[in-house]
Amino acid sequence: MDFGIILKVLGLLLLIESAFMVPSLGISIYYGEYDTAAFIFSIAITAIAGLPGFIFFKSNKRESISHKEGFMIVGLGWIAASAFGALPFRFSGVCNSFVDAYFESTSGFTTTGASIFKEVENLPHGILLWRSFTHWLGGMGILVFTLALLPAMGASTIQIYRAESTGPSPDKLAPKIGQTAKLLYGVYVLVTVIMIATLLIAGMPLFDAITHTFGTVGTGGFSVRNSSIGSYQNPAYDWIIAFFMLFCAINFSLHYEALHGNFKALIKDSEFRFYAGIVLCSITLIAINIYPLFDYNVMESIRQSTFQVASVISTTGYATVDYNTWPDFSKMILFLLMLFGGCAGSTGGGIKHIRILVLFKIIRREFYKLIHPHAVITIRVGGKPVSEDLLQNIVSFVLLYLIILILVSLLLLTQGLDMMSSISATVAALSNIGPGFGLVGPASNYADLSGISKIILTACMLIGRLEIYTLTILFVPTFWRQ
Amino acid sequence: MDFGIILKVLGLLLLIESAFMVPSLGISIYYGEYDTAAFIFSIAITAIAGLPGFIFFKSNKRESISHKEGFMIVGLGWIAASAFGALPFRFSGVCNSFVDAYFESTSGFTTTGASIFKEVENLPHGILLWRSFTHWLGGMGILVFTLALLPAMGASTIQIYRAESTGPSPDKLAPKIGQTAKLLYGVYVLVTVIMIATLLIAGMPLFDAITHTFGTVGTGGFSVRNSSIGSYQNPAYDWIIAFFMLFCAINFSLHYEALHGNFKALIKDSEFRFYAGIVLCSITLIAINIYPLFDYNVMESIRQSTFQVASVISTTGYATVDYNTWPDFSKMILFLLMLFGGCAGSTGGGIKHIRILVLFKIIRREFYKLIHPHAVITIRVGGKPVSEDLLQNIVSFVLLYLIILILVSLLLLTQGLDMMSSISATVAALSNIGPGFGLVGPASNYADLSGISKIILTACMLIGRLEIYTLTILFVPTFWRQ
Repeated sequence: MDFGIILKVLGLLLLIESAFMVPSLGISIYYGEYDTAAFIFSIAITAIAGLPGFIFFKSNKRESISHKEGFMIVGLGWIAASAFGALPFRFSGVCNSFVDAYFESTSGFTTTGASIFKEVENLPHGILLWRSFTHWLGGMGILVFTLALLPAMGASTIQIYRAESTGPSPDKLAPKIGQTAKLLYGVYVLVTVIMIATLLIAGMPLFDAITHTFGTVGTGGFSVRNSSIGSYQNPAYDWIIAFFMLFCAINFSLHYEALHGNFKALIKDSEFRFYAGIVLCSITLIAINIYPLFDYNVMESIRQSTFQVASVISTTGYATVDYNTWPDFSKMILFLLMLFGGCAGSTGGGIKHIRILVLFKIIRREFYKLIHPHAVITIRVGGKPVSEDLLQNIVSFVLLYLIILILVSLLLLTQGLDMMSSISATVAALSNIGPGFGLVGPASNYADLSGISKIILTACMLIGRLEIYTLTILFVPTFWRQ
Repeated sequence: MDFGIILKVLGLLLLIESAFMVPSLGISIYYGEYDTAAFIFSIAITAIAGLPGFIFFKSNKRESISHKEGFMIVGLGWIAASAFGALPFRFSGVCNSFVDAYFESTSGFTTTGASIFKEVENLPHGILLWRSFTHWLGGMGILVFTLALLPAMGASTIQIYRAESTGPSPDKLAPKIGQTAKLLYGVYVLVTVIMIATLLIAGMPLFDAITHTFGTVGTGGFSVRNSSIGSYQNPAYDWIIAFFMLFCAINFSLHYEALHGNFKALIKDSEFRFYAGIVLCSITLIAINIYPLFDYNVMESIRQSTFQVASVISTTGYATVDYNTWPDFSKMILFLLMLFGGCAGSTGGGIKHIRILVLFKIIRREFYKLIHPHAVITIRVGGKPVSEDLLQNIVSFVLLYLIILILVSLLLLTQGLDMMSSISATVAALSNIGPGFGLVGPASNYADLSGISKIILTACMLIGRLEIYTLTILFVPTFWRQ
């Protein structure tokens, strides 16, 4: 293990993070609110923490970063970024404890959007901007951004990219990872600008449009209104946000291809087709199910169903209504979508549609093998064969997800939560959604949970965002053996 | 496909079934109750239905039964046995519809123990005996019994044995399957006799002792008392039944070995050790959790915890108390045990511990592979390597179980059940337990469910008992292609 390179990358990461706090400081000064000092201190501390690592440490070998170093950099990077990102919340006094501040910051970077704030409308604007900005940074990946600045180091950084990207096998848009990172962030910035403009045209105030865009394109879900998107009572906002939530849960490589005129790539993509099918089926089934609830108004049922399906499947977590009051049939479909999550290479969380699709193909193969016991069958996705190693990786991922879900739910039950709340809080954290059902539903928040519950859920958000292996592998003894 | 052999085996199966109805007829005559005519008609119809198949059809080839024929014989055999077994319930008038009668009969043969009877104490004795006897027959397998009589046919019948046995790879105790079947039924009869004697010594009336023994050794759960084992208020019964429930959820091959003095086989068996560990952990955790509920009485908490853990993990479903009133933590553990079920080669249902154990080993291997990307690692259980084919079979089995669970739960939600009741009813049927949570809890029954719900759950019981593949494969189009 080359600790030189690890400290160097982490140092750069913190320097970038401190720079990213500057706009919030600016907003704070502009509004003349009480969080100005908090941002000045946070920027200084984060920069001072990052500087020595970046300047003094040198890598022993400079050819490539090993897979172990990749896990270390990404795992520690996310823990550190969330910790320093929590400073403004604590220093400004909006959070009473570091546990709360760390929960909120992690919830931001992991694009979960679970909040410990009961009221957000009385928070200072600098804090609100920082809170939403962490979504934007975490969505595409804080280390992907760092990589865009890293090529100067000369080391091959594919292992870092792999450990942070969503989905089983990340695409490379360019031969070099630094270049891929720049291209992806280019698409991301473009989508962000278009969405802000669209919301402004529809009539949303600038500050709200920016923060809600950060929350949407990062599929985060922090809002600057107490009742989330439901505060506005403007159907146009619902449709715009629903569209962009669904859009950002699609593989950004496909958006990149589409930008270059290759629309076929999107339509031909197996995962996108599966995702689109699941979205359409879910919207239809839920709309029919909640139809009586909305006075038999077809459009209203479709709008509410579309918004909630988009919010949950993209793992954003914005709310227009409290779906806790919906029938159990709709709730169960939403719960399943929480597990599914978005597509690989998107800003969405969850298991990812490609993995679910592969599971179905594994089952189909098994039936075929029972009928033709001596056949050797290769599973293909989009015509390309999937290696047995990748299949095993996917199967283990889903099993691990379910095991962590069960164990954490049991732990939360010991903290006084009921079954529905504890299971859905765990899924909401693991899949980086935010709201769950019951006590942690869209009309509630995480403020009243015990400290232990908050710490457990904070860990789950990180585990979920880093797709389980990256963080959990650091706790496997074999990892540390030479 | 050789339909001659299929009809011959099914014919023999029905002849055996009609013979097995005779004791119930005897009891009915002895008590002089109104179900005598029902049994005479049922015996006659079942025998007449079986006779032509057994006598007239001849197999084209007599060397061995193919795997496709094995699936057909076992799938159709269970559907037919449950249908003819339903006749006494319908003819006697204790069931108002054939759907109810078929539900009860299937629930019996599959050793589920879910009942549509609100009151069992006013049912005639012949019906009660038949109801419990179906558990005993279904526990070890109705076709395993048929196989014991089949060797005269000269055909190799391993495919039938495989399609009906529980667990991923059934043991062969003797070179010939007919002999293995005889040895297994020998152990089964011995355990049955010992348990009846033990209950008699403890003071249970003979009829109750026989019926509850059938319900226990088959891990079924039908009782002859309205409040199940809770009716007796005799702790000795609870301990005896809990012990035999746990005992019969262990691989009967291990019991056979132990009978021949080879106790090491039991202690060395990986699945048994895993099972024992899960049982002890669950009893401890639940006992601590329900301790305040039982007035801080240690022994009472342990007894109730032990009984419910034994009842659920063995998939029997006997009740001493209504665990619906227990804390969510205990309920969630019981729910997990419902999924786990017994061991391979036992009379218990569910996913089986060996499969769960293998899943853990698959995950452990994945971590090892992430750390050592080029290593090739074979998974071993009890020192023996498990083939990749079998691993894939196990993974697909668990995935299928979860998919069926989700789809059926959604279907039941459309029938007016709440989420807890529909999910647990599905698990209770798929794992052949009987009672679930909520509306289908131990203090309730399945009488008031809609006809569609009953048909769906009946199908689930058969799917679960035949470990998913055997029945579902008959609906795969490829199965029917030449």
